[in-house]
Amino acid sequence: MPVYHAPTKDMLFVLDEVLKISEADIPGYDDLDRETVQAILDEAGKLSENVLAPLNPVGDSQGCTLENGVVRTPEGFKDAYEQMRAGGWMGLDADPEYGGQGMPYVLNCAVGEMFVSSNMAFNMYQGLTHGAYSAIHAHGSDEQKATYLPKMIDGEWSGTMNLTEPHCGTDLGLIRTKAEPQDDGSYAISGQKIWISAGEHDLSENIIHLVLAKIPGGPDGIKGISLFIVPKFLVNEDGSLGERNSLSCGGLEEKMGIHGNATCVMNYDGAKGFLIGEMHKGMRAMFTMMNEARLGVGLQGYAQGVVAYQNALAFAQDRLQGRDVTGVKNPDGPADPIIVHPDVRRNLMHQKSFVEGARAFTFWGAQMIDRAHRNEDAAAEGMISLLTPVIKGFLTDKGFDTTVLAQQTLGGSGFTKEWGLEQFVRDARITMIYEGTNGIQSLDLVGRKLGVDGGKHVMAFFDMVKDFIKENKGQDEAFDRDFLEPLKAASKDLQTAGMYFMQNGMKNPNNALSGSYDFMHLFGHVCLGLMWAKMGLAAKAAMDAGASDDFYATKLATGRYYMARQLPATGMHLKRIESGAETVMELDAANF
Amino acid sequence: MPVYHAPTKDMLFVLDEVLKISEADIPGYDDLDRETVQAILDEAGKLSENVLAPLNPVGDSQGCTLENGVVRTPEGFKDAYEQMRAGGWMGLDADPEYGGQGMPYVLNCAVGEMFVSSNMAFNMYQGLTHGAYSAIHAHGSDEQKATYLPKMIDGEWSGTMNLTEPHCGTDLGLIRTKAEPQDDGSYAISGQKIWISAGEHDLSENIIHLVLAKIPGGPDGIKGISLFIVPKFLVNEDGSLGERNSLSCGGLEEKMGIHGNATCVMNYDGAKGFLIGEMHKGMRAMFTMMNEARLGVGLQGYAQGVVAYQNALAFAQDRLQGRDVTGVKNPDGPADPIIVHPDVRRNLMHQKSFVEGARAFTFWGAQMIDRAHRNEDAAAEGMISLLTPVIKGFLTDKGFDTTVLAQQTLGGSGFTKEWGLEQFVRDARITMIYEGTNGIQSLDLVGRKLGVDGGKHVMAFFDMVKDFIKENKGQDEAFDRDFLEPLKAASKDLQTAGMYFMQNGMKNPNNALSGSYDFMHLFGHVCLGLMWAKMGLAAKAAMDAGASDDFYATKLATGRYYMARQLPATGMHLKRIESGAETVMELDAANF
Repeated sequence: MPVYHAPTKDMLFVLDEVLKISEADIPGYDDLDRETVQAILDEAGKLSENVLAPLNPVGDSQGCTLENGVVRTPEGFKDAYEQMRAGGWMGLDADPEYGGQGMPYVLNCAVGEMFVSSNMAFNMYQGLTHGAYSAIHAHGSDEQKATYLPKMIDGEWSGTMNLTEPHCGTDLGLIRTKAEPQDDGSYAISGQKIWISAGEHDLSENIIHLVLAKIPGGPDGIKGISLFIVPKFLVNEDGSLGERNSLSCGGLEEKMGIHGNATCVMNYDGAKGFLIGEMHKGMRAMFTMMNEARLGVGLQGYAQGVVAYQNALAFAQDRLQGRDVTGVKNPDGPADPIIVHPDVRRNLMHQKSFVEGARAFTFWGAQMIDRAHRNEDAAAEGMISLLTPVIKGFLTDKGFDTTVLAQQTLGGSGFTKEWGLEQFVRDARITMIYEGTNGIQSLDLVGRKLGVDGGKHVMAFFDMVKDFIKENKGQDEAFDRDFLEPLKAASKDLQTAGMYFMQNGMKNPNNALSGSYDFMHLFGHVCLGLMWAKMGLAAKAAMDAGASDDFYATKLATGRYYMARQLPATGMHLKRIESGAETVMELDAANF
Repeated sequence: MPVYHAPTKDMLFVLDEVLKISEADIPGYDDLDRETVQAILDEAGKLSENVLAPLNPVGDSQGCTLENGVVRTPEGFKDAYEQMRAGGWMGLDADPEYGGQGMPYVLNCAVGEMFVSSNMAFNMYQGLTHGAYSAIHAHGSDEQKATYLPKMIDGEWSGTMNLTEPHCGTDLGLIRTKAEPQDDGSYAISGQKIWISAGEHDLSENIIHLVLAKIPGGPDGIKGISLFIVPKFLVNEDGSLGERNSLSCGGLEEKMGIHGNATCVMNYDGAKGFLIGEMHKGMRAMFTMMNEARLGVGLQGYAQGVVAYQNALAFAQDRLQGRDVTGVKNPDGPADPIIVHPDVRRNLMHQKSFVEGARAFTFWGAQMIDRAHRNEDAAAEGMISLLTPVIKGFLTDKGFDTTVLAQQTLGGSGFTKEWGLEQFVRDARITMIYEGTNGIQSLDLVGRKLGVDGGKHVMAFFDMVKDFIKENKGQDEAFDRDFLEPLKAASKDLQTAGMYFMQNGMKNPNNALSGSYDFMHLFGHVCLGLMWAKMGLAAKAAMDAGASDDFYATKLATGRYYMARQLPATGMHLKRIESGAETVMELDAANF
């Protein structure tokens, strides 16, 4: 059975010592003193370690079942769901006006990392509800909000997002699901949606589906899409459940991972739906939630890396095999623990330096979202919109890679179900795909976000890195050499790549588009380099202040690993980008 | 249901036009004219496409079952096994003296790629038999050979390799399985072996286990290990099956992939075993088969990439989503096929350029093995021993990556079981682990192979690359620029890395060992760069000779992609290596 230890101390380091959230001058952040945050994280950690983690392999092996239209979740999921509700976790950052606790999003992310590391498939049920909550909260009428939000925040009702159809996923302009206006102001929704996570299940009394559909006669393509609330059970005026709506789960997808979450085919057969937001502006409504939703998936990616790393580490410290070539470390045993071997350490350091950097990046991004929303800060909004595809794409690609590396630490044991590593690999894999494949993220970054407001936000990013280096250099030779110089070099690679796009993308957009994926990775490395430099500073400050704890020296050493051994990837990505579109586009499709 | 098309034309290109095997002056190779090879590949292709590939998802979903000591393989496996036997495929490269066809190993690899791409789990049954055959053939007595080989070559009996025990895999010196000498000259074998592929099943009448065990009183550790033949059924003097031996399958491993192959816990309870080769020289016997066995696993790695790529390509040509930004390609359809999009092409080209390079490298290596054995060529033996860990480690890492990339091409469909891609990912994953994890391969390469005979073989490799460049440069400016110059630069990175090890490894072996994994990858890229340059030359030659087929232009374009977009990884690996051991080794084990 795999282990999970809530990394509370590491999270507090990021929140309290690196981001210094309680001093961040964001409404609501002044409540986030270290003690309060620690108390919340301790509770979330207990739930994650004791309730969710033990259910993770159960959910994987049992999966969900569909019988006569009823989906049953794995044994124990209902109990765990009730414990989540009882703890008020589902409404942690939700609007107090509707019963939420109104905490900042950054705290939701810290707690969310624990829930996802311990049981990703389970946590998706409330994750989807949170997404639907956000859409209704942002775009619903007062009546809709009053009807749906309190029960969704409580978890009594859950939510879903219905976008994909069999013939269209990325290209939503092709949607065929129809919404026919009815005399009572509602719409009759008809069509089939696929890959609907948590589309049907036995955890909540009602399921509030948000469905993208086209109202006949509207504009073609993406501009003619509207968003509808389509509840599984219609809601009576007094808030009680009314009749069953004409929608049903037509099948469960058999898939590689996240077996504990029901991935449903949803059939809408003239179901009663209610327009949310403006007619034909459904995509805009979806986009307003996108930064949070995509950051949430980036979080899932590295969070699987976190738990995978923990298990790889436990194995490496326990498994005796071979001897340290520089001198026996465990003379009383038949062999040394494999953590003595340089290549095992390389692997572990790779995992560790990524997941800790990714956590800092995600929390930093969550703080930026809070700043954008709570301070109505347009610069923050621009910055997080720019970085969202990086957070989603880079952290899920590398998060998946981390689970694979962790699996490798265990050798043959990593391939068996017994040790649990292979589940982390299978579960992490979906994060690279859903909420926009990582290829789409890279196109969003290069084709859309780079050019927003005349490139203002990416320039702001470069300035931020430059200013950071300028402010901090010259105080400590080792820190300059180990952190600031590599960061500067990596940032220069990123700027050079951006320049290449500007100079060659006008001539032929494919010169930019065929480098987009590498650009996303290059960008991700620079961001994690920046995060490690920030963490290094904070660790140095603590040590300078007399902290004798190895914790801070370890942070510095882990950061040095990242700078020395991960950051050099930027040069490779730049070279690929600079090779242009020619080798990518040369072949006729028929000659592949 | 996934597709598989036997890539006969691509294989013939490598065998006949790049390696020019029929002119290679290796005994047995003169029979390998293009027509003969094509006829054999056509037959193997039919079997692979029509019999093995359709069984691949069946094997995955049904898996193997153990009941009362009897292991049942998935439906259809027995029939397919009989067809393999009837076709004589199991003895293709086996010794004619015992009923084999005596074909070169290189041909066995080409056929093997098809079998593995179409059904890896199934092909492992005969693969293991082949390994056991090789050990008995190399080290058995004449009587042992006469007793076991003919029926193993025929497939009537199968074979296994028993190395791993619960407490030891990599570090076989810790083996506890005992072999007590008996009065009749046999040994009583007692102990438990785990992860025994094909350890028990219903495909063959008898299973010949090769078991590593220790004879009491022998030297400690790895030097006290002997190898034994331990048949499931003892064999009577007339060759008929005698009594059941005291061994049994104690359980089947539940694992991430290769479900169609039974991974067994094997319990030996005083089973009758027969020493093979010299007492205490069991490891040496294992090592003689290692180059072939490890090349075979490298082949498995890229072969899963081959079939994954084929399915990604089929999807990309069929799936309509979005429009080509440079102009609509499919005006009559609702959208363009996704292969028009630069990032989809980047992904496909990455897959294609790897698997075709890997095939050339593997066949080239197989030819080197043939040259080593059939010509008793010590230089060839030295070269293939050097490159074996590169073939195994690099091709399985990148082969797995290729299956992941291919899965990504399909977006959400790639995550579902229906399309089959996720099975290729799960099946490919084991190749990075078994037959020595890839970490172990990198240690073998850097810690052992580089220094053999005073570094003679690695110097020979560099000379080979240098000579190749020298011989071919100056004839075609574009070829020099696109192929030879990148190859030269990559080879220089490899030499620089080797130099770093020489200069810093003496001081501290960890400076070499912590760079071993990156060195293996750096080496692999140089090898594939060399292969692409060789393939580029052959394609140019065909075009110069008037071939109008797009086939050759496609080879050149694919090679250019590899050189421009994959080879730049060498610089990253070099930088990591040159950062030395410090960041890898700095942390105390307790501080991870």
